[in-house]
Amino acid sequence: MTYIRETIVTTVDASGVAHIAPLGIIQNDHGWIIAPFRPSKTLENLAAIPYAIANYTDDMLVFAGCLTGRRDWPTVAVKDCPVPRLKSALSHSVLHVESISDDGLRPHHFCRVVAEATHAPFTGLNRAKAAVLELAILVSRLHMLAPEKIDAEIAYLTIAIEKTAGPDEQQAWSWLMQRVKDHRDAADAKGKQAVHHHGGHI
Amino acid sequence: MTYIRETIVTTVDASGVAHIAPLGIIQNDHGWIIAPFRPSKTLENLAAIPYAIANYTDDMLVFAGCLTGRRDWPTVAVKDCPVPRLKSALSHSVLHVESISDDGLRPHHFCRVVAEATHAPFTGLNRAKAAVLELAILVSRLHMLAPEKIDAEIAYLTIAIEKTAGPDEQQAWSWLMQRVKDHRDAADAKGKQAVHHHGGHI
Repeated sequence: MTYIRETIVTTVDASGVAHIAPLGIIQNDHGWIIAPFRPSKTLENLAAIPYAIANYTDDMLVFAGCLTGRRDWPTVAVKDCPVPRLKSALSHSVLHVESISDDGLRPHHFCRVVAEATHAPFTGLNRAKAAVLELAILVSRLHMLAPEKIDAEIAYLTIAIEKTAGPDEQQAWSWLMQRVKDHRDAADAKGKQAVHHHGGHI
Repeated sequence: MTYIRETIVTTVDASGVAHIAPLGIIQNDHGWIIAPFRPSKTLENLAAIPYAIANYTDDMLVFAGCLTGRRDWPTVAVKDCPVPRLKSALSHSVLHVESISDDGLRPHHFCRVVAEATHAPFTGLNRAKAAVLELAILVSRLHMLAPEKIDAEIAYLTIAIEKTAGPDEQQAWSWLMQRVKDHRDAADAKGKQAVHHHGGHI
């Protein structure tokens, strides 16, 4: 059992420019593990400045936005920390990288919590937020999944969107669905090219 | 679009005894709608004392517990409110029933927020918590669903449990899965009786 918090991780480069990325942080005995993919900006930043903030938010626009080229979410400075936090974070943990275990693909950064703060109240679970999160994960893996699997998952997740979403969740969902459409269109175009190449219908 | 918060609603009867129930509250222009099924203790309590507390928690043991006969979760008194809150609530809203629209099955109680408070920080989204919530909803509707539909949903939800659950989410999941097993066993027994009654195999 490895408990994973789905968070928005902020880091900075050597010149202090912030980067935000949706990342699951993995619980371990002494704190949390950040395992960014290689290559990634988060990985580069942690090598330069070994601090990160795990921002705890249920604002699905940020999760869906980061996956669809909308990374410009407001951040605010945090006292005694080189890294800013996400403005819309309900709470956050300041993480300091204590050690790194490099497996080549996803170096594990073992982090200790050095500070925490609360900014706004949690306003309850919402099934549509969870569905947006699942669609975000699906979108990040589109190239690895069969079209039928994608369709089946989306059909299932759509139920919670239709029943429980507010405007923000609808917006986040539609950003991600545009990515799914782009992926389908690209696959169709590839299919047509293949048909044309072979000079006939499959 | 009707945004729904999945909450634990506390109410009290005329003698002050608290009742807790998992309920989705529905956003409307002026506040939140509580629509408890008829008959239910929450419905009775709101008729006696027109206040409820919407407890915002992501403690899935409470959601799963309430659906599996484990309703004895600690509550604490709230200042200037006849209803106590759930102790493990991260935050809460005190709701006052302003009017009721009775459709027979699920009378809509239109509520105004009269007070709110925060108790503990939100610690991030977790896919396993969302999966437990979906299984809880599934368990509350077992009698209406085809066995294949139940199996397919559980197979899908199990992925998030295996990848991201901590001990509490595992426990909540197993309480609910016991209910699914009981339901399947009862269905099997019924099937066997039917076979016996008809004197042969179907």
